[in-house]
Amino acid sequence: MTDAMRLEDAPMPPQFTHLKDFTSSELMGLVDAAIALKKAPPSCKPLAGKSVAFCFMNPSLRTQVSFEVGTVQLGGHAVVLNLGADTWKMESEEGAVMDGAAAEHLKEAVPVLTRYCQAVALRSFPSGKTWEEDRKEPYLTAFKKYSTAPVINMESATGHPCQALADLMTIKERMDPRGKNFLLTWAPHVKSLPMAVPSSAAEIAAAGGMNVTIARPAGFDLDDEVMARVRASCQASGATLRVTDDVQGAFEGQHVVYAKSWGSIVDYNEPLPAAPEFRQAWIVTADKMRRTKDAVFMHCLPVRRNLIVRDEVLDGPWSVVIDQAENRLHTAKAVLLKLMTGDLPR
Amino acid sequence: MTDAMRLEDAPMPPQFTHLKDFTSSELMGLVDAAIALKKAPPSCKPLAGKSVAFCFMNPSLRTQVSFEVGTVQLGGHAVVLNLGADTWKMESEEGAVMDGAAAEHLKEAVPVLTRYCQAVALRSFPSGKTWEEDRKEPYLTAFKKYSTAPVINMESATGHPCQALADLMTIKERMDPRGKNFLLTWAPHVKSLPMAVPSSAAEIAAAGGMNVTIARPAGFDLDDEVMARVRASCQASGATLRVTDDVQGAFEGQHVVYAKSWGSIVDYNEPLPAAPEFRQAWIVTADKMRRTKDAVFMHCLPVRRNLIVRDEVLDGPWSVVIDQAENRLHTAKAVLLKLMTGDLPR
Amino acid sequence: MTDAMRLEDAPMPPQFTHLKDFTSSELMGLVDAAIALKKAPPSCKPLAGKSVAFCFMNPSLRTQVSFEVGTVQLGGHAVVLNLGADTWKMESEEGAVMDGAAAEHLKEAVPVLTRYCQAVALRSFPSGKTWEEDRKEPYLTAFKKYSTAPVINMESATGHPCQALADLMTIKERMDPRGKNFLLTWAPHVKSLPMAVPSSAAEIAAAGGMNVTIARPAGFDLDDEVMARVRASCQASGATLRVTDDVQGAFEGQHVVYAKSWGSIVDYNEPLPAAPEFRQAWIVTADKMRRTKDAVFMHCLPVRRNLIVRDEVLDGPWSVVIDQAENRLHTAKAVLLKLMTGDLPR
Repeated sequence: MTDAMRLEDAPMPPQFTHLKDFTSSELMGLVDAAIALKKAPPSCKPLAGKSVAFCFMNPSLRTQVSFEVGTVQLGGHAVVLNLGADTWKMESEEGAVMDGAAAEHLKEAVPVLTRYCQAVALRSFPSGKTWEEDRKEPYLTAFKKYSTAPVINMESATGHPCQALADLMTIKERMDPRGKNFLLTWAPHVKSLPMAVPSSAAEIAAAGGMNVTIARPAGFDLDDEVMARVRASCQASGATLRVTDDVQGAFEGQHVVYAKSWGSIVDYNEPLPAAPEFRQAWIVTADKMRRTKDAVFMHCLPVRRNLIVRDEVLDGPWSVVIDQAENRLHTAKAVLLKLMTGDLPR
Repeated sequence: MTDAMRLEDAPMPPQFTHLKDFTSSELMGLVDAAIALKKAPPSCKPLAGKSVAFCFMNPSLRTQVSFEVGTVQLGGHAVVLNLGADTWKMESEEGAVMDGAAAEHLKEAVPVLTRYCQAVALRSFPSGKTWEEDRKEPYLTAFKKYSTAPVINMESATGHPCQALADLMTIKERMDPRGKNFLLTWAPHVKSLPMAVPSSAAEIAAAGGMNVTIARPAGFDLDDEVMARVRASCQASGATLRVTDDVQGAFEGQHVVYAKSWGSIVDYNEPLPAAPEFRQAWIVTADKMRRTKDAVFMHCLPVRRNLIVRDEVLDGPWSVVIDQAENRLHTAKAVLLKLMTGDLPR
Repeated sequence: MTDAMRLEDAPMPPQFTHLKDFTSSELMGLVDAAIALKKAPPSCKPLAGKSVAFCFMNPSLRTQVSFEVGTVQLGGHAVVLNLGADTWKMESEEGAVMDGAAAEHLKEAVPVLTRYCQAVALRSFPSGKTWEEDRKEPYLTAFKKYSTAPVINMESATGHPCQALADLMTIKERMDPRGKNFLLTWAPHVKSLPMAVPSSAAEIAAAGGMNVTIARPAGFDLDDEVMARVRASCQASGATLRVTDDVQGAFEGQHVVYAKSWGSIVDYNEPLPAAPEFRQAWIVTADKMRRTKDAVFMHCLPVRRNLIVRDEVLDGPWSVVIDQAENRLHTAKAVLLKLMTGDLPR
């Protein structure tokens, strides 16, 4: 049997790459499993004898360590690869004449990895050239297409679904999210950042039945497709969706404040406004937090202190960012178990 | 007891660094063990409590992941070191006055590693300055000399014996190699590549009893010593050896086509010819494959699509490159077991 | 419960970051445990289910491999992170407005790591700007402050306590250190190196009850606080302390010769004297070793041959540097066991 035949015959393996592939109830099931795993680690080693290839085209701290430790705690082995840095540039386009910088096509690299490993995960940020190109996510798309094993998205141009699971888990540990108020508030930064985290945060909050407010300066709207999905989720659960540039007013009555900086689609990858008064207007402060209904403060980390949010908030009673980061471990384990064993703890 | 005394007393540990150190029958034994390991992984953990240091002076994908996963599947622990990148430049020459860039001598680094780990492996490419210097393989030679534990060559200037085992295994899974026809065909590339893979491929095909044809442009002969060994193996088995620049004719009647680009010894490390008609003459195409006796197409990967070989071949019925890459895992395990336990499965 | 509350409530975890935090008897207990571990590895897996994050801001060979293998041999899992290279620049200063290069504050990074891992270790060299700044060890100090799990110092500006344990262990395997003569001899180098190793070597020799001689050129005195501690230890044990620039005479009657290069505090981070006669005066030679009482020759490695010490010494009967490096493994295990289980083998 040749390789070509083998690829055709294989059924599509399960994948966790985009929130939109899952129902609210499926996502909630993963979160509940993560909460159960946090309380009681599985007594057996469900991933014994299995390896997972974690491929990083961009740097990582929480994502790498939480997935590596989670895999090991389940009895498996984590292979960490800095694709590009440790290896060589990868080609993703079908039919390419490879006489340039790329030394290997993902059409080979991915199936080879999934012969060695029983699942594969990819972190690949947008290139920053055009949003039209970046939203196609060429590397992740190639991983999904060529893999013969489960694929996990560890952050791509359009989303960060593993972060979103940890976000919802952190909320659910503190409140029933249904009908509660979730604010995604844009924040200043020294450079134009990807939209993956804010998009997934808005999607998961809506999927969890929360009323969603997005506070952002004019010109910083999220992708239309993301917003359409958020709107549909809110409609389905009877929740509200609001987009505003009234950053002060937006904090009123919130139960969750989720801060994040991101770049503009219309001025793609251009520097962000940096005037001191603009930064002051959008930074998260204790004064703003006091307008909420005792909201928790969330951020995916890394967070630039006193640029995105003041020390007084991160070091004050509102912050749950360390718990939120810890929950990356438990949700990673839920995703690994679901994809690699088909089974979840209750 | 001092260190100096300890080194003198120790017997030479087993090593898997060059095909020439092994008989055809020993190599075939390793391949048969790998085939057995592919069918049935060992039920016990023969490398439990043992660590292996995998040292990379050059990048790797298949080699790292297959050895790392193979070690873990056998119950051992893999330490992956990017020597140079993660550490500092290493000196290999005896008597050097180390007032330059190198901060450590392999005379210390290697015995230290083999105090921590029960085997050590090295990938070290040629420097590209002169073939006379490169063929001495100063780093691998130092590893062999200073190690107090088994040494594995994960590709050096003169050979890639682990790749060769996977190559022969891939052939043997499909046919009895004895008396079959093996074509090593030179291929275009954007840069001058090492001769390790084609040298080892020719050696292992000859050791397997195959008739060997090498198609290459004038000026691209392999090293004389390699060719002498290939010739001797062919004579011993009653097989034929042919070297030709008739690339079209060379495909006639072949059972295995093995494509690889390599640089010239006479114009050492000079750019390869890049004229479109030259590249077209040497690229592997479906037309060429149709001249064979339903040959399988092999390449060690990474492969530059549409420069070395057309998509129509890699994506067609001939290609076995993914199986060939997978077999790196099984042959790695055979080598580890042989060196570290002295024992092989049957 | 919010993050802020959680940090306040937690008691200080045990740490192994500075020799001065431990009594001579505690240090000797760790060394004795390491000697026991070398003879008989623990039959159970005391670190099963536990992970340790080894964070490197500077390169490492022995430290990484010995801690990684030691952790695995005890049943645990080692996460190796090149902080900076694999991730992003870290901020350590409280109250910083993070609009510069640093993307994350250690106030987040460290507690997150210690939610995933059950201990954390840091290698962080001095910046080389001013000794007044460097001796504050901002990164290590932040790790100690923010960690909710045991912290290990894998070399900081002021000390290398894990190396020191291996040093004393290597001596203790050969002699009762009490009352024996220990020479720390400054050595030439191509650049100005940190004072961590020589400071810790002098401290541990004094803690072990040895008479300490430090031979160094004028202007190369160690930090006053280090010297005060060495002096106090020598006084407590009734041993002598001598500092001299008579490098020839210093070798007379020594039982241990410990060579190391380091930079000057007064001409901080300036190039070292490089005149051939100066280098010849300070290099360790067989002639110098013959002045000793059959001393062993020690160096922490990596060592520049024929600049710090001649081949004739490293390859002669005096050298114990490979044993000394091996002992990093056994002392690492003792430190891990003490911090993570509270228990040591006898």
